Amino acid sequence: MAPWGKRLAGVRGVLLDISGVLYDSGAGGGTAIAGSVEAVARLKRSRLKVRFCTNESQKSRAELVGQLQRLGFDISEQEVTAPAPAACQILKEQGLRPYLLIHDGVRSEFDQIDTSNPNCVVIADAGESFSYQNMNNAFQVLMELEKPVLISLGKGPSDEHHPEVKADGYVDNLAEAVDLLLQHADK
Amino acid sequence: MAPWGKRLAGVRGVLLDISGVLYDSGAGGGTAIAGSVEAVARLKRSRLKVRFCTNESQKSRAELVGQLQRLGFDISEQEVTAPAPAACQILKEQGLRPYLLIHDGVRSEFDQIDTSNPNCVVIADAGESFSYQNMNNAFQVLMELEKPVLISLGKGPSDEHHPEVKADGYVDNLAEAVDLLLQHADK
Repeated sequence: MAPWGKRLAGVRGVLLDISGVLYDSGAGGGTAIAGSVEAVARLKRSRLKVRFCTNESQKSRAELVGQLQRLGFDISEQEVTAPAPAACQILKEQGLRPYLLIHDGVRSEFDQIDTSNPNCVVIADAGESFSYQNMNNAFQVLMELEKPVLISLGKGPSDEHHPEVKADGYVDNLAEAVDLLLQHADK
Repeated sequence: MAPWGKRLAGVRGVLLDISGVLYDSGAGGGTAIAGSVEAVARLKRSRLKVRFCTNESQKSRAELVGQLQRLGFDISEQEVTAPAPAACQILKEQGLRPYLLIHDGVRSEFDQIDTSNPNCVVIADAGESFSYQNMNNAFQVLMELEKPVLISLGKGPSDEHHPEVKADGYVDNLAEAVDLLLQHADK
């Protein structure tokens, strides 16, 4: 195998995942994975461009970056790509005003977004906000639209590290309910 | 076409659906469908045995029969087959103790069922009881079982008469979450 220097010859930057790569989430802000703080520091001292990405959809980048900084990471909000700001860009580009079926922890990412008179639904791992009432609010918004738009911030299934009901089923639930009703209406 | 008398020659009984056949549900107990009260009365005066069936899973037979009697129907609780009592029979036969993710209106049907230390989940159109907490309670019960048992009282999808999120997606959500986690555990 070629030495690292040679293998990286054509590489101009690195994109690092965060959860499970830099740190393990958990009580009290989680813990850094051994060697990861120093690895990020070395990459930043190198000629490589460093950026971070995450599928975290229950907290804002500000909160996530704050946690990571407290764990010793050299990281800033502008270096992080996450589902919520990506969704905000789509919303702005397409003139969409969302009903937000999301976790309170990520709500601040949508502070600049007009949510009046919604013409789409943004759904994410909403946790306790997955109430029947909120599901029906989202459903009613979608049903009143000629072409329902449902934007999901990721469909994380349950696994042994996350033994709870996740957004997956809620996304499918809403999409199928709307689809069924639309098919019915098309008859 | 043969006259009715001849066509019914080999028929010993009739099984009547209730919702949308005898009455339309709605505010104030709903309304009888034209001619249905008299039709039931005539059938009962005939030599035919008459029984009723329903997929109603949000109210007890006692409540449903009370509504129908107030609308003028000759009907008693013992003549009605419904999902909840059918589920109770399965639970008793198989020694199952359910966690009940159901509508409060149908809970009385399970009064004689032991729900301590649950070893299965019974799910139905739970309405407001489809909270994230209750979904996770059900999920945790299923996950602690070697062979998870999920009994559904029917999977009514949304339609133009029921424009709300129904049990369908919640049943699938729970089943898939458990299935995903089990597959993960099997690796």
